[in-house]
Amino acid sequence: MAAESIIRSKQTTEIVDGILTEVVCTLFSDHIFVVVTQYGKMGTLISVAPHCVANEISKPTLSTKILMGKDEPLIHVYAKHLVTFVSEESGNKPVLLALALKDANLESIKSIKKLIQSCRIW
Amino acid sequence: MAAESIIRSKQTTEIVDGILTEVVCTLFSDHIFVVVTQYGKMGTLISVAPHCVANEISKPTLSTKILMGKDEPLIHVYAKHLVTFVSEESGNKPVLLALALKDANLESIKSIKKLIQSCRIW
Repeated sequence: MAAESIIRSKQTTEIVDGILTEVVCTLFSDHIFVVVTQYGKMGTLISVAPHCVANEISKPTLSTKILMGKDEPLIHVYAKHLVTFVSEESGNKPVLLALALKDANLESIKSIKKLIQSCRIW
Repeated sequence: MAAESIIRSKQTTEIVDGILTEVVCTLFSDHIFVVVTQYGKMGTLISVAPHCVANEISKPTLSTKILMGKDEPLIHVYAKHLVTFVSEESGNKPVLLALALKDANLESIKSIKKLIQSCRIW
């Protein structure tokens, strides 16, 4: 028996700096899954999770952890830049990010962040 | 500029043993991502990867590794049962499985495997 979908997704594909870039955001009840791919690969899988400090009223800090793929310092920087707002806007949900970039720089990361914003489902 | 999608997905939602079950399969060039969720959670994330033994002509063996979530013996059994055929049929691609089951048994696992088969995109 076919039934209605439980999980929702939103996706977009655009050219960023001449490179075909696809973003897919999927809303789970315990996570938000964000895919950013520039050549069809799943690439590096990064967990971006908020940590609340007891008795602190400031924003929770985010920790990044590579679950699969190469662990390079820049990947952590890009991951935080791309999806910190996703966690904050969704009430501090952890984000799972699949990131496969050809040749990233701060400008292209800014453009990709706008693509993620256009796939807002949280 | 909007462009055509790079990655392809297929999904289905059915009632399995009275429980709403959703399956989403996404084909990446380096992985196949399979989501099986019964309550909207992403749940446990399991990497199911083939290992070829040198000078062996037999099928590669599959190793399972929990990347996120609880590591329980049955999860490894269910993961292998659900997605071994996905890896085999796709030319030994590694599979990433997100598994969130309410109350699994061998019968329901068989039904869920059929759902995954109906989302064949590899």
